[in-house]
Amino acid sequence: MKPIRLGMVGGGSGAFIGAIHRIAARMDGNFALVAGALSSDPQRARSSAEDLGIRGYDDFADMAKAEAARDDGIQAVAIVTPNHMHADPAVAFLDAGIHVICDKPLAATQEQAARIADAVRRSGARFFLTHNYCALPMLREARAIVAEGGVGDLRLVQVEYLQGWLSDPAQGKQAEWRTDPGRAGAGALGDIGTHAWQLAQFVTGQTPSHLSAEVSSIVPGRPIDDDARCALRYASGAKGGLWVSQVAVGQENGLSLRLFGTAAALEWRLSAPERLILTPKDGPARILTRAQDRSQSYRTPPGHPEGYLEGFANLYSDIAAIIRGDTQLADRVPGLADGLSGMAFIAAAQASSSADGAWVEVAT
Amino acid sequence: MKPIRLGMVGGGSGAFIGAIHRIAARMDGNFALVAGALSSDPQRARSSAEDLGIRGYDDFADMAKAEAARDDGIQAVAIVTPNHMHADPAVAFLDAGIHVICDKPLAATQEQAARIADAVRRSGARFFLTHNYCALPMLREARAIVAEGGVGDLRLVQVEYLQGWLSDPAQGKQAEWRTDPGRAGAGALGDIGTHAWQLAQFVTGQTPSHLSAEVSSIVPGRPIDDDARCALRYASGAKGGLWVSQVAVGQENGLSLRLFGTAAALEWRLSAPERLILTPKDGPARILTRAQDRSQSYRTPPGHPEGYLEGFANLYSDIAAIIRGDTQLADRVPGLADGLSGMAFIAAAQASSSADGAWVEVAT
Amino acid sequence: MKPIRLGMVGGGSGAFIGAIHRIAARMDGNFALVAGALSSDPQRARSSAEDLGIRGYDDFADMAKAEAARDDGIQAVAIVTPNHMHADPAVAFLDAGIHVICDKPLAATQEQAARIADAVRRSGARFFLTHNYCALPMLREARAIVAEGGVGDLRLVQVEYLQGWLSDPAQGKQAEWRTDPGRAGAGALGDIGTHAWQLAQFVTGQTPSHLSAEVSSIVPGRPIDDDARCALRYASGAKGGLWVSQVAVGQENGLSLRLFGTAAALEWRLSAPERLILTPKDGPARILTRAQDRSQSYRTPPGHPEGYLEGFANLYSDIAAIIRGDTQLADRVPGLADGLSGMAFIAAAQASSSADGAWVEVAT
Amino acid sequence: MKPIRLGMVGGGSGAFIGAIHRIAARMDGNFALVAGALSSDPQRARSSAEDLGIRGYDDFADMAKAEAARDDGIQAVAIVTPNHMHADPAVAFLDAGIHVICDKPLAATQEQAARIADAVRRSGARFFLTHNYCALPMLREARAIVAEGGVGDLRLVQVEYLQGWLSDPAQGKQAEWRTDPGRAGAGALGDIGTHAWQLAQFVTGQTPSHLSAEVSSIVPGRPIDDDARCALRYASGAKGGLWVSQVAVGQENGLSLRLFGTAAALEWRLSAPERLILTPKDGPARILTRAQDRSQSYRTPPGHPEGYLEGFANLYSDIAAIIRGDTQLADRVPGLADGLSGMAFIAAAQASSSADGAWVEVAT
Repeated sequence: MKPIRLGMVGGGSGAFIGAIHRIAARMDGNFALVAGALSSDPQRARSSAEDLGIRGYDDFADMAKAEAARDDGIQAVAIVTPNHMHADPAVAFLDAGIHVICDKPLAATQEQAARIADAVRRSGARFFLTHNYCALPMLREARAIVAEGGVGDLRLVQVEYLQGWLSDPAQGKQAEWRTDPGRAGAGALGDIGTHAWQLAQFVTGQTPSHLSAEVSSIVPGRPIDDDARCALRYASGAKGGLWVSQVAVGQENGLSLRLFGTAAALEWRLSAPERLILTPKDGPARILTRAQDRSQSYRTPPGHPEGYLEGFANLYSDIAAIIRGDTQLADRVPGLADGLSGMAFIAAAQASSSADGAWVEVAT
Repeated sequence: MKPIRLGMVGGGSGAFIGAIHRIAARMDGNFALVAGALSSDPQRARSSAEDLGIRGYDDFADMAKAEAARDDGIQAVAIVTPNHMHADPAVAFLDAGIHVICDKPLAATQEQAARIADAVRRSGARFFLTHNYCALPMLREARAIVAEGGVGDLRLVQVEYLQGWLSDPAQGKQAEWRTDPGRAGAGALGDIGTHAWQLAQFVTGQTPSHLSAEVSSIVPGRPIDDDARCALRYASGAKGGLWVSQVAVGQENGLSLRLFGTAAALEWRLSAPERLILTPKDGPARILTRAQDRSQSYRTPPGHPEGYLEGFANLYSDIAAIIRGDTQLADRVPGLADGLSGMAFIAAAQASSSADGAWVEVAT
Repeated sequence: MKPIRLGMVGGGSGAFIGAIHRIAARMDGNFALVAGALSSDPQRARSSAEDLGIRGYDDFADMAKAEAARDDGIQAVAIVTPNHMHADPAVAFLDAGIHVICDKPLAATQEQAARIADAVRRSGARFFLTHNYCALPMLREARAIVAEGGVGDLRLVQVEYLQGWLSDPAQGKQAEWRTDPGRAGAGALGDIGTHAWQLAQFVTGQTPSHLSAEVSSIVPGRPIDDDARCALRYASGAKGGLWVSQVAVGQENGLSLRLFGTAAALEWRLSAPERLILTPKDGPARILTRAQDRSQSYRTPPGHPEGYLEGFANLYSDIAAIIRGDTQLADRVPGLADGLSGMAFIAAAQASSSADGAWVEVAT
Repeated sequence: MKPIRLGMVGGGSGAFIGAIHRIAARMDGNFALVAGALSSDPQRARSSAEDLGIRGYDDFADMAKAEAARDDGIQAVAIVTPNHMHADPAVAFLDAGIHVICDKPLAATQEQAARIADAVRRSGARFFLTHNYCALPMLREARAIVAEGGVGDLRLVQVEYLQGWLSDPAQGKQAEWRTDPGRAGAGALGDIGTHAWQLAQFVTGQTPSHLSAEVSSIVPGRPIDDDARCALRYASGAKGGLWVSQVAVGQENGLSLRLFGTAAALEWRLSAPERLILTPKDGPARILTRAQDRSQSYRTPPGHPEGYLEGFANLYSDIAAIIRGDTQLADRVPGLADGLSGMAFIAAAQASSSADGAWVEVAT
């Protein structure tokens, strides 16, 4: 099958998430990166494009127009800029009829998010949001187990995403924009909180209706949140907790999810991503592996560790299939609804914390 | 050294915690059980005493008087009755000048707790509360590490105590009194919440000043709490979370503690009680074992697993040493202050939850 | 029930395994230690007996006679001397009609082992050998699973016992006699090899018919083996490996057992003694805990960690039951046959290694 | 940088290892697959090439000639055929001056291996052997630790590679050629034994001088080995064990390495590939992660799990660098010497087992 022609906005040399998207797009051979506006700095944009051997643009708006006009122009674009720079290119490419693969969170502000939403609704092109973790095989299997009643009625949810890399005040380039409220919108809430929120939602099939939050800036003088814990209430009566932190010293990337239902519990940790522990109420815990993943979201036999990049590539390969016409997979690929839900989560958490932890309804 | 003569109130045949106390008292040879009022049912009290080959009493008040009058009377008494039956015997034995080793929580009501406190203050005898987990070697080492600044300034605390045994409505004898508000006072909050509260306090050396709680009865129709999650604020600026549940299906006895400071993190889980993970900010995690426990709270070389009963026995052996005149160990053996703090925790959590999660000050 | 009157030979102050036996005997209240010849040094024997508050003897032979003559004399004796000192007291007490609880290995030489065997055969008293690990609940459950065909036909066995405490040439009192061929007989082979051998035998129900061994003294100048690896052949066609070492730096007490059959695998490690991993050929691994132990060899609910001492106490409590007349439990308590098999293992391993790894038949 | 033009022999549709090589070559963007003789069945060769959009050949010999003659011909070829089909294409491409990336083991017979060796020696092109595991970051770090004396003098080595997928007699296409002595040469010894052998060699920097082997066909009627255990002696005095099995039921892909030296121990398992446990003699175990990998053999920050495919890609990226002129990396990329050592290992193991476990010198 011919690779899909892909463009990229952001992701110039030295960028973190742009390089990840390129590997994910490349891994299964479904995409060919052919064009990019890789930096807001024109010189860096050009040299980065040259390094990659692709058509370079100084400006994403020019790129959207030019690519839309070419016969061999890009069919999809990955947007891997800081949060406050998602909306403008997303709107531009959607309006040009080019599919958008956007990094999370959806945007830095509710206004930006609303503009993206409008563009998605009026465009014939698709919009995807790279909440990559939910494409890991054991989380797809977890979702399937919950959906078929394997945990019974859900009672308790605990999702955590703990990192330690922002434990000190100043932390280099990545930290710079992520701790700048103007560019990031929210701190830990946006960067990893939305991942946690989406993951719990993806696996349980439920969204909390209300939350009570304690959002903190633990590092003195930091202008943005670096730790947040929320109590969650579900319409079903289930209770939950969400805890994210970027000052949890020694934690590399501690994402985890625990569910307890009337019939069984599920536990998953990113540190052992290919193990899903299913504990029935009356029997021994079972260590599910990819041998039990019915979605077969992998490339190698069980026991050959796959991880973060493969999960990201699972998303890209699903996106490729959808672009090529698949109608089954959209359900498991995050998109606009996930993005808006993440923005609603951020807003609710900030509102609750500002009201000293008052319970706040999550907008839907 | 001559064993200390021990009595017991509660703990008749079939009782859970009474049997534990007897093993703990016996393990290191520091106590000899010689008398007991083992049940409120006189016949069961007598037959249980006979089985154990000890002096049996129908009534704890008679026992306190009679034993105090004997030359070879008991020197200490273990009170292992349901929560609402702690205060009366505790007061009786304290007033008789006999040391009291009381199971946790301190009492079922604040009024009972206050009566115990009064008796402790007027008695020359000692009062001990068996928060046994804090006597495990790696938790004593954890406390020493925190005290000497090994984690730096404390920023984040997460303590959890998750069990699944009350997932269904009806669960047998143990469940009966523990889910009866009249006898237990509180449910999960009292039974395991006070353990979690005390453990975090013991290791960190800090007590939360305020909390916001969501206390739930997850099982329909249950008259008492079976799940509670609290956000915690410390005067030092540290933030924390406490989550206890007795409906976490599949969890046998999931007590865990995680601390994050400016310099390092500590993690401990009861499921691997002899491992303490210390992760410095800039270095690899270290798996501390009993080989690193400076308190040497054990009987066997590292690698010969000790656990719950040995931890309980550590407490009993410290109590024996204190009764015999030791003046150093009192600091690490829980007593009245821990009991009152636990009652203040229960009260604050119930008050906050009743006020829909409003932040409540914890009484000191 | 009245405690059984117990004596002890060896185990004076400062001894390791004697203290363990005393805790194990005491834990469940089934034994009362009343007499001892606790040291070959008369003064230490006396002061140790005084410390314990028991009848002290200078000499085990005198003790055997005197105790046998008393109405309230000991009913059983624990022999916890170095290996070369097992046979003489064992014979003396057996001949006096007193049950013997002997530490492993059976003896330092085949001649000593034969004398014990003769005494057991002519005595009305019982002989028990404290291979304590096989009394741990999950190993009893493992044995039950194998016996009922739960792993299918056994194909592969791997048993390891790795310690690091003899990594350096000189290591204090415990190391002294254990590395002296005259007193220990064999080094790692006797001290921990016999444990590994017995454990594999206990769980699988099979004894290797032949072995090929590489027995080494890794520390330069050490007069006794400190590392041994054996390939094993079973009459059933199963193959196996046994590896023991006392120079495996960093290993505290690394005993483990892995079995692979036609239908399932079993894996157990002393470092997590209450987990037994059962992996069926076509399904996910299951983490069995004490909740699945059908022998109910424990005192506390699952999740309250029990370990080494409780396992040892399980053995003592079974021994008490047998002495009191139980006829069911003998099958799971190690005795003379285990001791002789251990001696045959040592002999075969030494013979094979001397013949440069030639396959040697294990005597039965 | 321009991608290196890559060809492939074998790896037609449905093949396992060919697909792996393609992902590994693609992941970091250093190779472009442009030509292939993907199957010995001409029709499958052609359709597979079409699917991949590359130049297809019916025959590798034609391909070698044609590609060598093109200006835009391949610069390197990946040989991913069954073992007995490595030598002929390797020789053909090497003689055509094209670099060869050959799957392991080197060949099915010593004669084939010798022919490859001759071709390597006379060719100006490079020869690489994809022992992929040694390119995992924590194993590169392990090697660095050993090389700098971090474990002291090596005393004990234990390497295991356990799989369960051949537990039953008939197992599908992959099993077919791998259990055919004519095509595979050796069974478990060749398929996974050479991986284990090479990995121990890579990390320790030492090769055993002698071995004693027990090579078995556990499944009745299987014409090739499916289980092998070897005792190892090193010239340095170190002792070791190597155990490989393809009938270890329930084991997905259980590769592990344990080293014990005079100063420290190292432990690594493929099931947790990004953890390396370093246990100094006198201190706590340390869990090294990629944060400690000085070779920086990864794409993402620590905590974003990378695994099997990334390790394979590390090898491919090093190969690309070497082809482009790097002179530093050859030392860590396996090549002919590893291949010949693997063949010597197979020969020695088969010889020893045939001589009932006699110690056999490993050819160098």
